[in-house]
Amino acid sequence: MQIRLTTDETVPVAQGESVQDALKHAGIDLVSSCGGKGTCGKCKVRIVQGDYRESGNARLTVQERGSGLVLACRTFPVGDLVVEIPKVSRLVVGDKIAVSRMRELAAYMRSYGVTSSPLTSRLDIELPPPTLTDSISDLERLKRELSKHGFGGVRFSHRFAETMPAVLRGSAWNVSLTYIEGDGIRDEALFLSPQDDAAQRYGIAVDVGTTTLVLYLVRLLDGEVIDIASTYNSQMQYGDDVISRIVYATEQAGAERGLAELQDAVVSDINALAATLCGRHAVDAAVIDAVVLAGNTTMSHIFWRLDPSSIREEPYIPALNYFPLWKAGTQRIAVNPQAPVYTLPCVASYVGGDIVAGVLAAKMHRRSEITLLMDIGTNGELVVGNNEWLVTAACSAGPCFEGSGIRCGMRATVGAIDSIRIDRDTFEPVVSVIGGGQPLGICGSAMIDAIAELFMSGLLDQRGHFASGPTPRVREGDEGYEYVVAQGHERSSDIVLTQVDIENILRAKAAIYAGVTTLLGEIGVSADALDRVVIAGGFGSSLVIDQAVFIGLLPDLPRERFAYLGNTSITGAYLCLMSKDLRREAEVIAARMTYIELSASRPFMDEYVSALFLPHTEIDRFPSVRTRLEAS
Amino acid sequence: MQIRLTTDETVPVAQGESVQDALKHAGIDLVSSCGGKGTCGKCKVRIVQGDYRESGNARLTVQERGSGLVLACRTFPVGDLVVEIPKVSRLVVGDKIAVSRMRELAAYMRSYGVTSSPLTSRLDIELPPPTLTDSISDLERLKRELSKHGFGGVRFSHRFAETMPAVLRGSAWNVSLTYIEGDGIRDEALFLSPQDDAAQRYGIAVDVGTTTLVLYLVRLLDGEVIDIASTYNSQMQYGDDVISRIVYATEQAGAERGLAELQDAVVSDINALAATLCGRHAVDAAVIDAVVLAGNTTMSHIFWRLDPSSIREEPYIPALNYFPLWKAGTQRIAVNPQAPVYTLPCVASYVGGDIVAGVLAAKMHRRSEITLLMDIGTNGELVVGNNEWLVTAACSAGPCFEGSGIRCGMRATVGAIDSIRIDRDTFEPVVSVIGGGQPLGICGSAMIDAIAELFMSGLLDQRGHFASGPTPRVREGDEGYEYVVAQGHERSSDIVLTQVDIENILRAKAAIYAGVTTLLGEIGVSADALDRVVIAGGFGSSLVIDQAVFIGLLPDLPRERFAYLGNTSITGAYLCLMSKDLRREAEVIAARMTYIELSASRPFMDEYVSALFLPHTEIDRFPSVRTRLEAS
Repeated sequence: MQIRLTTDETVPVAQGESVQDALKHAGIDLVSSCGGKGTCGKCKVRIVQGDYRESGNARLTVQERGSGLVLACRTFPVGDLVVEIPKVSRLVVGDKIAVSRMRELAAYMRSYGVTSSPLTSRLDIELPPPTLTDSISDLERLKRELSKHGFGGVRFSHRFAETMPAVLRGSAWNVSLTYIEGDGIRDEALFLSPQDDAAQRYGIAVDVGTTTLVLYLVRLLDGEVIDIASTYNSQMQYGDDVISRIVYATEQAGAERGLAELQDAVVSDINALAATLCGRHAVDAAVIDAVVLAGNTTMSHIFWRLDPSSIREEPYIPALNYFPLWKAGTQRIAVNPQAPVYTLPCVASYVGGDIVAGVLAAKMHRRSEITLLMDIGTNGELVVGNNEWLVTAACSAGPCFEGSGIRCGMRATVGAIDSIRIDRDTFEPVVSVIGGGQPLGICGSAMIDAIAELFMSGLLDQRGHFASGPTPRVREGDEGYEYVVAQGHERSSDIVLTQVDIENILRAKAAIYAGVTTLLGEIGVSADALDRVVIAGGFGSSLVIDQAVFIGLLPDLPRERFAYLGNTSITGAYLCLMSKDLRREAEVIAARMTYIELSASRPFMDEYVSALFLPHTEIDRFPSVRTRLEAS
Repeated sequence: MQIRLTTDETVPVAQGESVQDALKHAGIDLVSSCGGKGTCGKCKVRIVQGDYRESGNARLTVQERGSGLVLACRTFPVGDLVVEIPKVSRLVVGDKIAVSRMRELAAYMRSYGVTSSPLTSRLDIELPPPTLTDSISDLERLKRELSKHGFGGVRFSHRFAETMPAVLRGSAWNVSLTYIEGDGIRDEALFLSPQDDAAQRYGIAVDVGTTTLVLYLVRLLDGEVIDIASTYNSQMQYGDDVISRIVYATEQAGAERGLAELQDAVVSDINALAATLCGRHAVDAAVIDAVVLAGNTTMSHIFWRLDPSSIREEPYIPALNYFPLWKAGTQRIAVNPQAPVYTLPCVASYVGGDIVAGVLAAKMHRRSEITLLMDIGTNGELVVGNNEWLVTAACSAGPCFEGSGIRCGMRATVGAIDSIRIDRDTFEPVVSVIGGGQPLGICGSAMIDAIAELFMSGLLDQRGHFASGPTPRVREGDEGYEYVVAQGHERSSDIVLTQVDIENILRAKAAIYAGVTTLLGEIGVSADALDRVVIAGGFGSSLVIDQAVFIGLLPDLPRERFAYLGNTSITGAYLCLMSKDLRREAEVIAARMTYIELSASRPFMDEYVSALFLPHTEIDRFPSVRTRLEAS
């Protein structure tokens, strides 16, 4: 028996094996947080053809069942199957490119000149066992020993006390105390454990994006990133952007239930990612005792189940910008329940901890040169400044560069086309695929490539409309014209870029470019004055700056001023996981940033409309593009 | 339709009314924490006769059903019923004598010369509403305002943040902050509420005894005790004393489950008492924002679900003696979940917070005279000392003076016979009943009376054996001879004191007296050196010191040195609820007390055996008793 995927891969199935297990054995991980019990409802796949047996699909809606979806963990092939794995069900672990980058993170952290000081600390303690003449209670005994180490006024939670007696006796009074370092009188004890290998302590850094979640599993001893995993945010079923999430959380579903559903979704995503990495590296989730979270203000509120409603109502006030160190257990994060969760501080309702993380990761708060940080995710956020001032704004770009809302879009992970060149004569494309093999979709860098190349080769006009005729690669589809980027095989579909896709991409690039020019105008800085432009986001490392300038996404500046840093949110989260000094710098960054509201700005709307063209209605702003167009 | 109780009261029943409701309307409260849903299983009554309809008695065991027990809330009379209410099912609210005493507590607190400073504090705050130009987050706005009031470094829990935004907006930014006062940099915010009447803030003081629970509902504004309620500790089904409870918690039922069951029992008792008082006084449980708990070390551990196993294993080490201020919500106490719970500190495994409360209530730590405190509950605890030193010991007395383990025993509440005199010629008793009316049983003070009177009138010999013959009041029962204290009416039974009861009482008095003499011997203080002897416990206020000396329970000292203070554990809990200074004094008392272990002491065993006689084998120790006996 075998399963053939619509992407053309073939997977053998052993007798009695579920679809999920068969895929897993072939190295294809699905999102799942219940361990195959059929209760989390995450491992949805579509049976295109073939017979199978089901045992419990209660988590599926009538609509989902009608469209052929099943839970892979509760579905058992009876004969050969053809299966489609929806993008949201596919879990990506250890993307090769990201993994090679992540190996450098510990070194990058050291480049800040700070010492390693993870969110949680550990102290080995040897207690004298109690006797009839030294019969103080367990906790007093521990406090007495701690005072010898200079601790005073340590806080002990109820959960700490509950587990303390058994650990003390089970480890013959030689224990390790895991604690949060305060200021000497406000340290907080988290839990005791037997004295073990210090290398067996882990933390996780999580980037909670509106569209995508990324999780790093980090060894706290040396800051080594053990592995990474990413997935789409399951909240996407409730809406693409933060506004629709807030509406769902506070209105549509009935206040508390809606918020709880959204929170359950993100918690279950994080748990699924953590569980996969723990399983893969034989790490007990209980030894993960530190969590750092970077997300925009809405994502941070939903994670903590805090009412986000006033974020979208004038005067746009979040409940919190600075989050106390609350415990993972309060939100049912499946790591050590006593693990503190550090949340990157937010600046305002539409500039969150992910951007503070970005500033930290780009070191712009430490440098005297003026840097522009452009973080292009579902919301496009911008920061301009240096070590003396920081100004920030947000512009709604939509999730297309992360693959969402684009017919064949996907994240920059294995199987994504990340680069496209189109022959000027034949109009045939040459593509590269992350990890090689059959392409599964197009990621952000290739979308930019495609538009630049289609425009350059005359297949798109200045307004982004397809010109039909010259090549069968441009054909009529069900959403108007579309360009065939890669032909499908047998049961897999063609990978195309449709007219609708292109309009979405143009709207996104126009919003971002308009945001940049409006923000620079508001603060009276010319684009030329920018010493450095840092691009952050999930485009994929194949992003070609020239192409991004060519379509008018980035301002036309000397190319050496640009740097693509990838996901700076997760980098910042990692830095805060590993360094107390950098956590403090994050707080300072958040406090120092001035937020400028662009949404109500008339100049922004004008700039946006002008920027909907390729590259722009005012070609003079893009001298290098004009030169290139004239040369072609 | 009507219900006739075996105690001869008659209660009308309306059509469709449950037994519980019918009793309630007649002013007879049963223990219940589920509000009549049939899920807590506490309102057990026995149907002696009559027809009824049941709807769900799932919480009863087969044995219970076999013995005629039903849940009063799920049982509906079809015709007239005869019903017996077991002692454990009867909830006692507002016992008249205790209520009159409790009115004096606020004045008693003032006699300490401390100002009122309840466990939780409240601060009214007016926040400027946010605007586009003052758009910091809700929590930053609150912190900014607090810093104007001199607060810094306040801790905010996740639960605080969750409820904050709605309260701020719902009360137009004028709110009250309830908080725990720390040392200026460690204050802890508990919750926000609309600014309301400060008189609408309550706390509860709870005495968690091994046998009995007592709860005071206190208005925090002025320390007024609104009402009291008491019940037997439901943990009694798992064993009479702390040792059998520890065994059940840690061995019999399988470690964690046993502890959880015991904890559920005490939590559900506390909730039942609190719910009854809240219902009676129309107090919303959410406005109870402070809880103080006094209990022995084992009861305190079980309340907090802390492993008590090492309490009974040499070298007898509790997990905690000093309990941090944890939240009521962590233990599912049905008051404001953010309410802090102050636990009176314990001294050692067998001298707990109830005794520290007793020392505090008896002011012995403040006086230069030497006081002996005898707290006679299930365990008899003793403290000797003054404002310079305090020595303590424990002796296992058993729960008989609280009514448990005595055929017709009951607590000193309404319906209890609290005083007995026996005519020397006719052997007929004259009894008084708390609250008047039909007697339901015998409380501790009457047990002491009965033994003294039976001995004096020659119906008991020195060994406590009944002499038969002289009166039909002494008759043969199923446990040997018994004295009929009160004849039953129709369906209610006679109230008797059996030979077994008397032996139990003699063992208890012997253990206590032996404890006193051994302890005094150990520290080299003669009984004569005692300036004051304070008796604490649930005997009932009719305790006659002469009688207690006469049976050899108390040492034979001039009567003016004795004082009966009743339940000093709940008094101490009340004092700690209302005063920060007294909480600090409680900590100092606990730290200053020296514990002496008597259980392994050879002199104690010798003393115990000698004390099993009436009044004692060495009559010379009781000169006043000898005089009285010689005079009779």
